[in-house]
Amino acid sequence: MPAPTSPGMPLRIWLVGFGTVGKWLARTLDSHARRLARDYGVGVSVVGLANARDGFIYDERGLDLSSVLRRAADGAAITDEPGARCWPSALEGIRDTEADLLVEVTSSPSGDGEPGVAHMRETLERGIPVVTSNKWPVALHGVELAERAHSHGVAFRAESTVMSGTPVLSSLIDGLAGTVPIALRGLLNATVNFILTGMAEGKSYEQALAEAQRAGLAERDPSADVEGYDTMAKVMILSALVFGRQLRREQVTRRGITEIARAEFEQAAASGARLKHVASLEFSEPGGLGEVHARVMPAPVGRDDPLASIDGATNAVVFRASPVGEVAITGPGAGPQLAGQGVLADLIAVARSRSKLHRRRADRDA
Amino acid sequence: MPAPTSPGMPLRIWLVGFGTVGKWLARTLDSHARRLARDYGVGVSVVGLANARDGFIYDERGLDLSSVLRRAADGAAITDEPGARCWPSALEGIRDTEADLLVEVTSSPSGDGEPGVAHMRETLERGIPVVTSNKWPVALHGVELAERAHSHGVAFRAESTVMSGTPVLSSLIDGLAGTVPIALRGLLNATVNFILTGMAEGKSYEQALAEAQRAGLAERDPSADVEGYDTMAKVMILSALVFGRQLRREQVTRRGITEIARAEFEQAAASGARLKHVASLEFSEPGGLGEVHARVMPAPVGRDDPLASIDGATNAVVFRASPVGEVAITGPGAGPQLAGQGVLADLIAVARSRSKLHRRRADRDA
Repeated sequence: MPAPTSPGMPLRIWLVGFGTVGKWLARTLDSHARRLARDYGVGVSVVGLANARDGFIYDERGLDLSSVLRRAADGAAITDEPGARCWPSALEGIRDTEADLLVEVTSSPSGDGEPGVAHMRETLERGIPVVTSNKWPVALHGVELAERAHSHGVAFRAESTVMSGTPVLSSLIDGLAGTVPIALRGLLNATVNFILTGMAEGKSYEQALAEAQRAGLAERDPSADVEGYDTMAKVMILSALVFGRQLRREQVTRRGITEIARAEFEQAAASGARLKHVASLEFSEPGGLGEVHARVMPAPVGRDDPLASIDGATNAVVFRASPVGEVAITGPGAGPQLAGQGVLADLIAVARSRSKLHRRRADRDA
Repeated sequence: MPAPTSPGMPLRIWLVGFGTVGKWLARTLDSHARRLARDYGVGVSVVGLANARDGFIYDERGLDLSSVLRRAADGAAITDEPGARCWPSALEGIRDTEADLLVEVTSSPSGDGEPGVAHMRETLERGIPVVTSNKWPVALHGVELAERAHSHGVAFRAESTVMSGTPVLSSLIDGLAGTVPIALRGLLNATVNFILTGMAEGKSYEQALAEAQRAGLAERDPSADVEGYDTMAKVMILSALVFGRQLRREQVTRRGITEIARAEFEQAAASGARLKHVASLEFSEPGGLGEVHARVMPAPVGRDDPLASIDGATNAVVFRASPVGEVAITGPGAGPQLAGQGVLADLIAVARSRSKLHRRRADRDA
């Protein structure tokens, strides 16, 4: 929380994707506008907005967020918003209009990460920064997207793709800039850790899963979580953005938690360990060289391991780098408002570096 | 680690302070220049350098760091460096010369935080960013310095002042931007935590202190650590930069570890807790309102508390904020190369935002 200040020119945003995260962000930008201006000197104007069903709307004067939110709550088309110009798809809207930032929060499935990848490529190639909560585009093309951003001198941020609003990526990328990554281990899926915590207490897999579903943590079809695909995406994101290496899906050794035998829990407990679903990344040679080995699998974790005490929906990452040694980050791993929070932090980072630039110019011209 | 790239115009640095941290940084910038250029697109040129004994030297073409390091190792005056212009003090050098960043790593004692405060004020008023590892200037004047930086649109970063190279400040300030702070608890002094870990194992205070001194953790006069003054400075820094509130020294309730009775350890253990030296900050009213209450004192910590398992020279912060909940960051708390690493990460952050700007301009002019 730096000094109070008044915002300069507002940051014009395309908000592409209007599901849980997109709506949370729209509500927050609408209702917390004054706090964001006061605490961060950040003014935001959502000029473009898109959902998969209706298409893309644009108003250069800024859309009325509470009106669009009401329309969405009523099941009406966002394209009925008065005064807004419409395009059939987000990609066409992004091509034809102007903004200072793309917030990409569509749901882009694991197959090819589309339409997210196309939205991000188009935007970065126009020299406009991108913030996303969209896992698969970053998992599959993170190195390429970061390079595109870098070559145009703009930001590409994806904080909420790993452990939601818990600041993992910014800590490892920015906070530990200058260190040489060695290895990383983590518990990266809240649902899976919640289920394993229940199973360690003696519940069956089915009982623990049902409890996670009642708690709103697990989907009706839980396979993306329990088979380890969600964690695999996060490991690929960490490899791309922290280790600088693009992995393909088949390069990640993966085993889910659906077939863990009761005996495995007992074995772990007998040796004073706990069974966790551990994601890991490791360079094959010191100094950040060689291959990156990636694994997602159930593994016994010794009681002194910082990961052993991480229970329920809490997640954690333990990062080893030279010359720092081990740094651990623990926090909530899931939740729509937490994903929104990660996007908001990224958005503030982009807005701040832009307002610094404006203020510095004004300073020099004075 | 983003894409390989070639650096643009190098970032010109005044390196003020040439003790352990300053020398580590000079060595690292000298020997890792190629890696920094390759991995971060960051080129650095140390144009000014100062120590307390000899004064300030400046060479606009960049000083020869290995030559200056050799000179310092031989006990010779840095002002004998051939080709360098000299000033009797850093402040005069900063006033008369040009640079893009001040790295302030002098030792500025707790009384008034000088000469660090004066160096930073002068630099920020010139619209030049500041990176520092200097605790007391930030503890005593953090809000003022951050406001000066903000009003000139430049960065003020002090990562290594709290938990050294472990990225605490960047995580809480940037990574959790947009959240509303509620409270914070931490173990912020490596020496004290090391001594308490020894005492919990049955050692006397004197034995545990002697061990910390043999390990190179505790100073010969350990009072700044064991009386809690060092932790007090860190709490004041966190209050200023994360909670946005400037505290005065007398507003921090402080009790050291020198007079803990053996019985206190036994009492804690009997109730299943561990005795730790806990720093805490808390808003008196929800929503980041009211007073900030600050404490540094021995306290029993329940076994399920994330702070309970933090032993030896490892430190930790548990931060509570809305809407995220609890985020914990654990890592090494001290060490000269770790303080240097925190400064390096800050320096890279400044260099990157500057090179983004340059690249964007080149992009537009193309």
